[in-house]
Amino acid sequence: MKLIRHGAIGDEKPGLVDARGGYRDLSGLVRDIAGPALSPESLARLRMLDPDSLPLVPPDTRLGPCVGGTRNVVAIGLNYADHAAETGSPIPSEPIIFNKAPSSLCGPNDTVIIPKSSTKTDWEVELAIVIGTRASYVHANEALNFVAGACICNDVSEREWQTERGGTWTKGKSAPTFGPLGPWLVTLDEIPDLKNLAMSLDVSGERRQTGSTATMIFDVPQIVAYVSHFMMLEPGDVITTGTPPGVGLGMKPPRFLKEGDTMTLRIAGLGEQRQKVVAFDAWTAKAAAGEPTN
Amino acid sequence: MKLIRHGAIGDEKPGLVDARGGYRDLSGLVRDIAGPALSPESLARLRMLDPDSLPLVPPDTRLGPCVGGTRNVVAIGLNYADHAAETGSPIPSEPIIFNKAPSSLCGPNDTVIIPKSSTKTDWEVELAIVIGTRASYVHANEALNFVAGACICNDVSEREWQTERGGTWTKGKSAPTFGPLGPWLVTLDEIPDLKNLAMSLDVSGERRQTGSTATMIFDVPQIVAYVSHFMMLEPGDVITTGTPPGVGLGMKPPRFLKEGDTMTLRIAGLGEQRQKVVAFDAWTAKAAAGEPTN
Repeated sequence: MKLIRHGAIGDEKPGLVDARGGYRDLSGLVRDIAGPALSPESLARLRMLDPDSLPLVPPDTRLGPCVGGTRNVVAIGLNYADHAAETGSPIPSEPIIFNKAPSSLCGPNDTVIIPKSSTKTDWEVELAIVIGTRASYVHANEALNFVAGACICNDVSEREWQTERGGTWTKGKSAPTFGPLGPWLVTLDEIPDLKNLAMSLDVSGERRQTGSTATMIFDVPQIVAYVSHFMMLEPGDVITTGTPPGVGLGMKPPRFLKEGDTMTLRIAGLGEQRQKVVAFDAWTAKAAAGEPTN
Repeated sequence: MKLIRHGAIGDEKPGLVDARGGYRDLSGLVRDIAGPALSPESLARLRMLDPDSLPLVPPDTRLGPCVGGTRNVVAIGLNYADHAAETGSPIPSEPIIFNKAPSSLCGPNDTVIIPKSSTKTDWEVELAIVIGTRASYVHANEALNFVAGACICNDVSEREWQTERGGTWTKGKSAPTFGPLGPWLVTLDEIPDLKNLAMSLDVSGERRQTGSTATMIFDVPQIVAYVSHFMMLEPGDVITTGTPPGVGLGMKPPRFLKEGDTMTLRIAGLGEQRQKVVAFDAWTAKAAAGEPTN
């Protein structure tokens, strides 16, 4: 299944994608694509439905982040050997964990806002997974049982704040709109091989990142198991698993996002994201004038 | 007001403390001490109530974390000059931010579980604040308007995982029960001076930490303003603001928590926490035998 959340910001409703790509509404069947709706039992019930029997949602409806109620966004750093190399970092001997603020999550096609005073806002296409069942001290060989599905995450990053402001990477990973998530939460049964998904990111039509989950240093089961030994993972928690090479910080000279750019992200089988980039001042001016900001 | 959450784990109900220290139930008036219930308007409405008109809750009722629905637990590192010194770290030039997993939060008197394979679980008494109103790019001179209240947090820490496992401190700060919070969420109007609160922590009756918020490097308004420039803070988010000297890691030789210890934490005006310490294997054995684990 391809699960979605459709509607206005903060008022998203649950839905799914039918065989022809149409959006169908799941309101009344589950409260949200969140918490208990992500359990294996709940997903099995939803899978029994005939999508064509569900109300159609207009195709131009905004999509929200494909999971709701997320309380913990864990990110894995430097998890592609060639990306570690482009940033001048050694290959990690165990996964690097950092956090993104849950308030950074947004819809897959929402506008990405370059924060106030930022000069180094950068892109990162990533495979993210969503936890379906509470997970604590799980082993890698059972870890996928605790995962509801996967989606694209743009792990938008402010490089100065991430690396030059002291402390942990959280500072550069957490601004509003720094976590486009979706378009769909694709359940694991629809993903033939998590370890062989082609991925790409374009900025304004120019290819910047090309990669495959085949070159991840730590794979999804290893990551879920590892993280679950340091913290209890709960339904709706997101783990985004690192980015392949091609980020702006790694270019010579480095290049960062600017007002008017468009990012297009793709992962095989997980769909496409497309975000316009707007500078904070332009965005606030639009909002003040009552113009659409999204 | 002193707001509480009372009842079984995961099923806490809202309440407050009356003038004689009795617990009173707020069910039906607010859904939870969480989200919209933390707004200035909501707190003003609750302040109008006569506590004696509210149903009494038995005094031996368990207290949960004093705020519910928390999606972001931000912690400030090395925010007391003398604590930075005891860990051999330089005084930070700007606040150090790290995260605790929201799933680490627990009640103020819940058992603290030493995680599986941990040998360096340590204590940290801290002043925590709870966000009442969404805060983004706020200035220090208005920051307290966005704060609902304050409480004690024990920022329990696994020192090996925090510092010797690569990446950020999150790994050592996030295990289940690593965030006792409460007993009360004390609204700001009841705290005469956030910058002059005596604080202490005892382990099994021996004083370990003695301090005062007077020696914080960055004060609460500065911290809220600073964090709000990197991420949007939402109602129910928690910021725990650092610990004074006296942690186990700083002792010569270092001393860490062991099965059977009891921690007692106090901050002037914010009440007292008391946690038994249990090792993971002993805790799981009790749970398996159906004995009380809390």
